Amino acid sequence: MRAIRWAQGQVELLDQTKLPHESVWETFTSADEVAAAIRDMKVRGAPAIGAAAAFGLAAEACRLQGDPQLREKLHAAATRLRSARPTAVNLAQALDAMLAVLEQTADDAIADALYAKAVAIADADVATNRRIGAFGADVIAQHGGRILTHCNTGSLATVEYGTALGVIRALHERGILDHVYVDETRPYLQGARLTAYELAEEGIPFDIITDSTAGYAMAQGWVDAVVVGADRIARNGDTANKIGTYTLAVLAQYHGIPFYVAAPTTTLDLATSTGRDIPIEERHANEVTHIFGRPIAPNGASARHLAFDVTPGELITGIITEWGVAKPPYIESLTEIAKRDCR
Amino acid sequence: MRAIRWAQGQVELLDQTKLPHESVWETFTSADEVAAAIRDMKVRGAPAIGAAAAFGLAAEACRLQGDPQLREKLHAAATRLRSARPTAVNLAQALDAMLAVLEQTADDAIADALYAKAVAIADADVATNRRIGAFGADVIAQHGGRILTHCNTGSLATVEYGTALGVIRALHERGILDHVYVDETRPYLQGARLTAYELAEEGIPFDIITDSTAGYAMAQGWVDAVVVGADRIARNGDTANKIGTYTLAVLAQYHGIPFYVAAPTTTLDLATSTGRDIPIEERHANEVTHIFGRPIAPNGASARHLAFDVTPGELITGIITEWGVAKPPYIESLTEIAKRDCR
Repeated sequence: MRAIRWAQGQVELLDQTKLPHESVWETFTSADEVAAAIRDMKVRGAPAIGAAAAFGLAAEACRLQGDPQLREKLHAAATRLRSARPTAVNLAQALDAMLAVLEQTADDAIADALYAKAVAIADADVATNRRIGAFGADVIAQHGGRILTHCNTGSLATVEYGTALGVIRALHERGILDHVYVDETRPYLQGARLTAYELAEEGIPFDIITDSTAGYAMAQGWVDAVVVGADRIARNGDTANKIGTYTLAVLAQYHGIPFYVAAPTTTLDLATSTGRDIPIEERHANEVTHIFGRPIAPNGASARHLAFDVTPGELITGIITEWGVAKPPYIESLTEIAKRDCR
Repeated sequence: MRAIRWAQGQVELLDQTKLPHESVWETFTSADEVAAAIRDMKVRGAPAIGAAAAFGLAAEACRLQGDPQLREKLHAAATRLRSARPTAVNLAQALDAMLAVLEQTADDAIADALYAKAVAIADADVATNRRIGAFGADVIAQHGGRILTHCNTGSLATVEYGTALGVIRALHERGILDHVYVDETRPYLQGARLTAYELAEEGIPFDIITDSTAGYAMAQGWVDAVVVGADRIARNGDTANKIGTYTLAVLAQYHGIPFYVAAPTTTLDLATSTGRDIPIEERHANEVTHIFGRPIAPNGASARHLAFDVTPGELITGIITEWGVAKPPYIESLTEIAKRDCR
């Protein structure tokens, strides 16, 4: 299953705000259209956003072919794409890789070169996720087959297969997965809407739980390990991910349950020392106070909507990457793993 | 503000499933109608359920006046009311008090005596909550004026004023309340719908947050103290309350934030030794997988809906009652407090 399709000059996205009950594909042919789709969360998940932005910039190059200010306009478009969501680093990394190609390419080859690079970024994501799944299944098999996860980190959050959900898929493929507990993940309900959708398609047994049930589920002994994705990982292992991840990490530590992050090395941001330096996107309060456009709170009620939180590296048992599982101290293990990544 | 009104032979309830956008009062004239309203959560909150059940039994006595099997039928009705929701102990306590009156009353005086007792139970609740508020404000003032709470424990959950929300009201009346963070409290959204409604009416500054935001709010230093209500408190201080309470208690301990339970002594169940013996109601999965009757998950997706959890006494800084604040070890302090309650 994929939620992103491409051709030169365009990218098609399955509108994730409408899943699981409506499957609406939209076609985008400019960088600004893709930036809007990212902002509106029609595409979400750090790796998927990175790939979508790359195709958005490639489409922009196609659209502007022959424009005398092509390079300047592509740089400006990249800046607008980059600011669509501030927390995930894959977006910035994908655009950096695209701009590096732009620098190295003659004017009349830019559109082809950017498209080729976007395809390469997307293809690399799939291979990366398979490797994350294999490493993750190796390390999690020792703890047991009942996994709790948060948000959506599957085919819909990546180009294919998934990160944390890729690990769950790999455990299932090996026949050692017993059950998945899926946090519904308010306010966007990515767990209930998207992860449940992917698990149902795979025939993997699961139960949706409200986010606030996770602690009691752990206390009841239902959970052998927690696996989540990441939007940005600082040099010391501090990990920005969907709001609620930090709470799960504290709960897991309290209950002695291993807590893993699964993410490609494109999510590593070794230039950022600690989680304190990661910008946390605050989104509109309406996204908390309304569901399906209908208010759940009194008119005018105030709300805070932090889209992400930061989990300190100390609370993370291991970070599963396509180059193996980094263990604390992360300042050493992540630096070592980044060296193996020759992109 | 009250959500319960009474006259002899009937009880009127403000349907809390429709708040804050619709104010629909329903009138009930039999015990079974009230039992259904409790089951369907038209009335909720442990003390409010107790009072509603008392009026339900009084209405039943009125309805059956002159019936030769009046006593047997009232006992049977009490049993049906008692089983409407299993976790809150106030329901059982209110019915026990009503049945004690029944035993002591001559046949032709039953309807009047039961109505008088129901009124007394309701009136006592209001006075009790004022006292809880005062004791709670005394003890919480030392920690600061930024309070996090969960679910709804206010006028809507009691006869008037509230338990944990009564403490917040008392802090506000004293001018030492700065801000309230209100967990939305999935799946029924009692925080977003009901607590926000009460706070807005009082002009108390607040922000709704998703349940999974509480941990990060604590990590950011937004919260000076947590105050929640209770549905049943065992002899050792283990406290059953709305699902998510346990998670908050673990988070509060991790962040060194005081965690208080506010509840009348009718919530104490000293006959129950520990939380392991408290029955936890599991409700229908549809209440998780649907919002406003609309599915948020794929058709047929499985979910678990635990309505309550149990927080161990070790995680509770103090239990605020109408007779003062019990501190650990609860097995001593709660027993002492129960002695002061002459009901």
